[in-house]
Amino acid sequence: MTPKDVVRRGRLAGERTGEMTQFLSSMNADRYIADADILVDMAHVLMLHKQQIIDRETAATLLRALLEFYDEGIPEAAFDEGFEDIHAGIESILIGIAGEEAGGRLHIGRSRNDEVATCIRMRLREDITKQMAILARIRQVLLELAARHEATVMPGFTHFQHAQPTTLAHHLLAHESAFARDYQRLSQALGRVNRCPLGAAAFASTGYPINREYTAGLLGFDGLVVNTMDAVSSRDFGLETLAHLSLMMTHTSRLYEEMILWSSPFIRFVSLDDAFCSTSSIMPQKKNPDTAEIMRAKAASVLGAFVAASATLKALPLSYNRDLQELTVNLWRGVRDAKHSSGLLAGMLETATFNTERMREEAGRGYSTTTDLADMLVRRLNLPFRTAHSIVGRAVQKGGLDLSTLDSASVEISGEALSTRGITVADVGQALDVEAAIASRKAPGGPSPVAVKSAIKEQQAELEKDREELERINEAYSRAVSALIRDAGRLAGE
Amino acid sequence: MTPKDVVRRGRLAGERTGEMTQFLSSMNADRYIADADILVDMAHVLMLHKQQIIDRETAATLLRALLEFYDEGIPEAAFDEGFEDIHAGIESILIGIAGEEAGGRLHIGRSRNDEVATCIRMRLREDITKQMAILARIRQVLLELAARHEATVMPGFTHFQHAQPTTLAHHLLAHESAFARDYQRLSQALGRVNRCPLGAAAFASTGYPINREYTAGLLGFDGLVVNTMDAVSSRDFGLETLAHLSLMMTHTSRLYEEMILWSSPFIRFVSLDDAFCSTSSIMPQKKNPDTAEIMRAKAASVLGAFVAASATLKALPLSYNRDLQELTVNLWRGVRDAKHSSGLLAGMLETATFNTERMREEAGRGYSTTTDLADMLVRRLNLPFRTAHSIVGRAVQKGGLDLSTLDSASVEISGEALSTRGITVADVGQALDVEAAIASRKAPGGPSPVAVKSAIKEQQAELEKDREELERINEAYSRAVSALIRDAGRLAGE
Amino acid sequence: MTPKDVVRRGRLAGERTGEMTQFLSSMNADRYIADADILVDMAHVLMLHKQQIIDRETAATLLRALLEFYDEGIPEAAFDEGFEDIHAGIESILIGIAGEEAGGRLHIGRSRNDEVATCIRMRLREDITKQMAILARIRQVLLELAARHEATVMPGFTHFQHAQPTTLAHHLLAHESAFARDYQRLSQALGRVNRCPLGAAAFASTGYPINREYTAGLLGFDGLVVNTMDAVSSRDFGLETLAHLSLMMTHTSRLYEEMILWSSPFIRFVSLDDAFCSTSSIMPQKKNPDTAEIMRAKAASVLGAFVAASATLKALPLSYNRDLQELTVNLWRGVRDAKHSSGLLAGMLETATFNTERMREEAGRGYSTTTDLADMLVRRLNLPFRTAHSIVGRAVQKGGLDLSTLDSASVEISGEALSTRGITVADVGQALDVEAAIASRKAPGGPSPVAVKSAIKEQQAELEKDREELERINEAYSRAVSALIRDAGRLAGE
Amino acid sequence: MTPKDVVRRGRLAGERTGEMTQFLSSMNADRYIADADILVDMAHVLMLHKQQIIDRETAATLLRALLEFYDEGIPEAAFDEGFEDIHAGIESILIGIAGEEAGGRLHIGRSRNDEVATCIRMRLREDITKQMAILARIRQVLLELAARHEATVMPGFTHFQHAQPTTLAHHLLAHESAFARDYQRLSQALGRVNRCPLGAAAFASTGYPINREYTAGLLGFDGLVVNTMDAVSSRDFGLETLAHLSLMMTHTSRLYEEMILWSSPFIRFVSLDDAFCSTSSIMPQKKNPDTAEIMRAKAASVLGAFVAASATLKALPLSYNRDLQELTVNLWRGVRDAKHSSGLLAGMLETATFNTERMREEAGRGYSTTTDLADMLVRRLNLPFRTAHSIVGRAVQKGGLDLSTLDSASVEISGEALSTRGITVADVGQALDVEAAIASRKAPGGPSPVAVKSAIKEQQAELEKDREELERINEAYSRAVSALIRDAGRLAGE
Repeated sequence: MTPKDVVRRGRLAGERTGEMTQFLSSMNADRYIADADILVDMAHVLMLHKQQIIDRETAATLLRALLEFYDEGIPEAAFDEGFEDIHAGIESILIGIAGEEAGGRLHIGRSRNDEVATCIRMRLREDITKQMAILARIRQVLLELAARHEATVMPGFTHFQHAQPTTLAHHLLAHESAFARDYQRLSQALGRVNRCPLGAAAFASTGYPINREYTAGLLGFDGLVVNTMDAVSSRDFGLETLAHLSLMMTHTSRLYEEMILWSSPFIRFVSLDDAFCSTSSIMPQKKNPDTAEIMRAKAASVLGAFVAASATLKALPLSYNRDLQELTVNLWRGVRDAKHSSGLLAGMLETATFNTERMREEAGRGYSTTTDLADMLVRRLNLPFRTAHSIVGRAVQKGGLDLSTLDSASVEISGEALSTRGITVADVGQALDVEAAIASRKAPGGPSPVAVKSAIKEQQAELEKDREELERINEAYSRAVSALIRDAGRLAGE
Repeated sequence: MTPKDVVRRGRLAGERTGEMTQFLSSMNADRYIADADILVDMAHVLMLHKQQIIDRETAATLLRALLEFYDEGIPEAAFDEGFEDIHAGIESILIGIAGEEAGGRLHIGRSRNDEVATCIRMRLREDITKQMAILARIRQVLLELAARHEATVMPGFTHFQHAQPTTLAHHLLAHESAFARDYQRLSQALGRVNRCPLGAAAFASTGYPINREYTAGLLGFDGLVVNTMDAVSSRDFGLETLAHLSLMMTHTSRLYEEMILWSSPFIRFVSLDDAFCSTSSIMPQKKNPDTAEIMRAKAASVLGAFVAASATLKALPLSYNRDLQELTVNLWRGVRDAKHSSGLLAGMLETATFNTERMREEAGRGYSTTTDLADMLVRRLNLPFRTAHSIVGRAVQKGGLDLSTLDSASVEISGEALSTRGITVADVGQALDVEAAIASRKAPGGPSPVAVKSAIKEQQAELEKDREELERINEAYSRAVSALIRDAGRLAGE
Repeated sequence: MTPKDVVRRGRLAGERTGEMTQFLSSMNADRYIADADILVDMAHVLMLHKQQIIDRETAATLLRALLEFYDEGIPEAAFDEGFEDIHAGIESILIGIAGEEAGGRLHIGRSRNDEVATCIRMRLREDITKQMAILARIRQVLLELAARHEATVMPGFTHFQHAQPTTLAHHLLAHESAFARDYQRLSQALGRVNRCPLGAAAFASTGYPINREYTAGLLGFDGLVVNTMDAVSSRDFGLETLAHLSLMMTHTSRLYEEMILWSSPFIRFVSLDDAFCSTSSIMPQKKNPDTAEIMRAKAASVLGAFVAASATLKALPLSYNRDLQELTVNLWRGVRDAKHSSGLLAGMLETATFNTERMREEAGRGYSTTTDLADMLVRRLNLPFRTAHSIVGRAVQKGGLDLSTLDSASVEISGEALSTRGITVADVGQALDVEAAIASRKAPGGPSPVAVKSAIKEQQAELEKDREELERINEAYSRAVSALIRDAGRLAGE
Repeated sequence: MTPKDVVRRGRLAGERTGEMTQFLSSMNADRYIADADILVDMAHVLMLHKQQIIDRETAATLLRALLEFYDEGIPEAAFDEGFEDIHAGIESILIGIAGEEAGGRLHIGRSRNDEVATCIRMRLREDITKQMAILARIRQVLLELAARHEATVMPGFTHFQHAQPTTLAHHLLAHESAFARDYQRLSQALGRVNRCPLGAAAFASTGYPINREYTAGLLGFDGLVVNTMDAVSSRDFGLETLAHLSLMMTHTSRLYEEMILWSSPFIRFVSLDDAFCSTSSIMPQKKNPDTAEIMRAKAASVLGAFVAASATLKALPLSYNRDLQELTVNLWRGVRDAKHSSGLLAGMLETATFNTERMREEAGRGYSTTTDLADMLVRRLNLPFRTAHSIVGRAVQKGGLDLSTLDSASVEISGEALSTRGITVADVGQALDVEAAIASRKAPGGPSPVAVKSAIKEQQAELEKDREELERINEAYSRAVSALIRDAGRLAGE
């Protein structure tokens, strides 16, 4: 039998039906924050004792039970959907174990409003750092691939058409740059996520002489969400995280779109590992890029989670409203989808086989170096760029870029043939050469092997810095938890 | 050990990691359509036999196994996440039971593309009719409450301010009207959902002499999704359903918003049953309308599901792409949220206590009958409405609607006092009388008891018709399934 | 100088700053409904006179002014942003022209709340019928193209990979089917849009003896929005329209995606007319499918409009709140984007050149008829489908579909070579023949020329019926307006 | 007559119809970036000259024309919708003025792809700083109001119910904290927005020896978007801005919701200035909080803009696609809605009248200090908190908090009456005292006058720092532009 819910027992009469209970209970989502809740409970007890709000014996009794939950796992009974949430569940079980004399003092000077906000933030900071680690791995794979393909020539696209030749490295580095910004955004969000709401109680804080900075420190927070009404009412830290994840998923979806397009029989730039493909139940020859397709779609799901969370928060008066529970459901949904979906990306890229011959073959197609031809005319004949552009464009319209077609186009546009001005077949051929065109693009960030080599170095250095920062952050969290457990153990008399 | 996936075994080499398998598998969502899949399999086998594509013995062997699955439940092994989906799972298990000679013929002339689309539509038509039943119940409760409150006077609001007095019945009937349209929309969507894609195979149909109308009939569909490429590529039936549910949730959220506002200590128009409320973990006096708040928020979640599904489908080339799997995940999510959330509404309304005294008390507040006063001046003094409106407005600005204030306002606006034109204190009092004001509003759809009584009758008649139609639909589905099982049983030789 | 706003003059003191005025004014959006407003005013005046609420002379004076506005255009002064909205603008101008004695009676028994809802519905019904006409034209073009390409062979795709051969007609008919459903949805929405809210006044109707059915009839409505609170509070007719448009745009975006992909140098299935393309400012050889890209993106904008409108309506208590003004802004935005974007589609398809040689060339690529080969093995050797599927799949993995590879695959899978069971090279060749494969797919909705010919006939017949219905609707609207003008003219004494 | 579009003239044949032209033209949106374009042109010309790509005379000719555009305004002809965009418009007009010899060289080494991205970022950085200034003003007003209301007692709410008493200052400071985070997010986004894409050309940079750092410096950018494919393909800077604005609007909508609720006749905590209200066209007594309602709705519109922009970018392959034009339309729409909507907020707060008597009156309602009563029992009787909570909760259920009800509740829960344990009527009264309860909540961020005074000081100091940073940023932008004009003037020979 379910232990009685200690929160409801005093005040409310009507018994809830099973359906309603399940609907209202946040238990399903609460499993995700249950471990954090134990740590929050420990820190709160340590603080109550330090501030002489509860005596040493009560504190020790509570901490012994909590440490057992921490070591052995929270008893399954605490997750009974008969409880409104995990906080009520743990408290009720604790009272069962430690007696009401001790257990009934756990909730002094706090409320579920500040408790749940604290747990969500602790869990989310972990999710964010995990997501940052995934991004770091993706970036690393992209940089390694780029290093392998500094001179791999391919067609660059605009409007899904061959535009100008570029290098595969250049293309991959474009993606890496976007993911580096995604990383930076998450890192900045972390500064707002990792603030401690504890001590806000229902929203008005408490008359007990609590010590907010102390609990915040024990739990590894960077500081307080100072205003106590803000502390329980705000969820912009969650919306912000979802927004950043949605942006990141936009970026993954663009890369996956390319993997799908590139693995098509039309293009054959890439062959994905079988592990990331499926076949057809009816067409045995098929090797479908299913993983990439689902990943592409997941970007839509994370956007949907952001919309749901945002439309939930819109126009809610302060302070706490239960709508926030549903917001959290969408937060975890988005976090999980983003993690799973981006988590497979590095592996897919690493195991993919790039068909550099096909890329080279297509690089010169579609008049891809006509801009270079126009540029040559500008330099050699001192033509205005717009005039040279028009001549070359007209020649394409006429069907070719051989000198005679160019001549006839030039006569139409400027009244004079190019060959009469000294342009030779060799000049045209040289100007249209793919490798030469790429090599000439040496500006920072450009596609030439020289430029990408330098870019890889810079972007790798940036990534190293990011990784070191991430390590520092993760260590700080671990250190705080270890210290908390140690302090709790001491007071518990272990 | 998991039986070998019969779909992959031929073509693909790379073994999938656990994480990837789980990510790609639609098993979680497929549980929801597994029962439908068995029926689809049976109908397909009956058709293959009828068309002499498989022999009687093969058909009987397959049907015996399928009927056992139907009666005893699908073996849990079929849901192993090692299978890409439930279709591969069932087929593989079936081959294990019935041998490849028979089991290997189940998939003749079809593909998972048409199979899954058929299952989704069968399941969705059930969800829609269940949702219609929920809406019918909500409408019934609103009509019954309205009948009880035909003469219950309350303030009507614009801009969350007292505007003009009305009746509670009038207010409740406004909500009923909106839900009636939601019902109608779902009913019209059903006509597009309940079409059979089976026989489309991968998208190009099949060279076997299949009989699409026959399977469609066996499964209780209203007809075919004729074009076979459309049949596997389209999901507008799902988007449409989500859109209608999102609209419906907008309507439930408006009613829940009112329940929250009305149960506030400021207003006290309603007291919700304890079963729909929670208390505070720290403030024992609280009785919070939690259920209504979560329901309000669920409207955002269903909107998010629609966004996710829509952004998934946008710009997908024909025909089948695996993105559609993720679309379905969002479809079921939205369907489930809508069902649970709206499902609690009737009960909350039924058990709520309306405080008619408080309503009456507030009905006359805030100068709510000034329009009637202005109208009286128009009628009595033949003033233009805009002039009368200005006089009354000015009087309010001056602080009251007693005759002397009105007189002074009238002098300012029109140069003459009302009393000098024969208006008396009694005239003013009568014009401002709340009950009289309400009683005078007799136009169809208006708030007077006479008008609402007539409206209840009409809206109830409409509901009866809707319910009869729903019963017919549900019976048609049941009849089809019974006949299918019977036919399968006969051929299986039972 | 702006005439004084007759609505504000009585009650409110503070003068508004320019910025605020502009922000609050709906004038910009109101231009869109101004013409409808004149008709609504006329119908209201005719009704007031018929019900003896105003006298003939007042009615005639008002109608003369309104008819002049109708014939000559509404005076620009009525659109001054100093007015809160066009309703206040027109009324104020009218009072200036006709005097307060007459003009001040225009607003008897109504409110801007019912007035604006009526205008929006009148305008929207026109937009919807225009959108239906655009869809009819797109469907016609698709059917004509399909008729021209009944036997044009092309590869059908799944996962953007060659799957099985099909006909261009089959592919185009899939799109036509989706647009036919879009048409049907809009047609059903029309039944809910074209209901008259007039007479609801602020929300509580009025004490005047108005005649709601009469004005509804004069304005060409199909009936009333009966409940008067519902009449001013509901906007589901707008959300629904946006949802249907968003679905339709999903369909246009899928077709445009294909136009973009198909016009790429990789595929070259289609060449779009220059009018729908642009070139590059720097790469003169480019011919970019810009129109298709913007159209593809517009699907996102219409989805955004739906989200905005839905999130606006969520959790609004009854009855009217000014938030609805912003909802309307998003409604018109979505309607306009959908109209413009879909409006260009028929022309783009009509002027496109389909490269049937390229299609034929690709149709046989990628082992596209292996399913037919497996089917042949099933028929000839009485193999279970799954076994045949595995043999063929293994052969593809081994690199080819020649008989010797098939034999070796067959030995691995089933222990026996195909050739020893009588399968010849000719058998394999015949089974893999593209035209034969297509011709064999004769089920309803399939790709064979026989099946598509029959489908075109049915879909064309459906379109004719839809068009006749649309014509009837448009005529009914025109007839109502003509009769209204005639009646107004008579009473005005013209 | 429109001058010929210099971009299209060479390559494309088909003339565009008016409708298509208008649809495809981005002119409407381009007005917004036209001024930035002139500056970009100048910087580009200065760089081309510095790098010796064009000669001094050409540079001088171009700069003279551009400076005239800058001083006198861009000729209206450049905005003709016959041009694809403003870049083509300005270049064409320039060629008309300066001749093709000079004008035809403006576009050397660049493309509209990098040009438009540069213009958008320059305009957006301005919009962001303006938005930051608006936020700073809102924060200032909130802090000033808080300072005036440090001791203004009001009920704090959870679930829109009286929960515990707090101070108005505490409530206002909660909002200020949220806006401070919005400010911080925009400030961090600025670091990613203000990067220069110029020199990326179409995406592959150029073979000309351009100097990217030089132009970036001239235009006041903080650095480059290094990778040139990233530079033209990425729009996450726009999505990010929209996301932050959407979050900010969520916060404004919560405050506006409160203004709407608080100005209702039920609550009367605030009276908004007439300038922010409207009256009814039919109910002269109404004073509706229209401005707040539209502002509340605008949050939905900005969310819609984010959805539109995100769904546009999803799954677009690199590099430039014309879909990005539509993304920008939604970007400006969101930016403008956010600016207008938040821009009115400070004024509304400043001019509002807070009814502190009503607040005080409600502060003690609804058993708002029962938590304090429970806390007193914990301290005095050393009861576990949960026991005290149950006793007080039971007493509320029984109807009151007088000692005798408390005694009877206590007997039920704990077997002993409170009075027998020494609790007196005076004890209970003291514990329930509102002012005492507030004063006791002294933890950082709490509601007591002492705590809010200290919070105001800290939050004001934070605001000062933010403002100084903003001033520095704005000055840097201005300085760059002045220097650019000066350099251009020198070279132009003025």
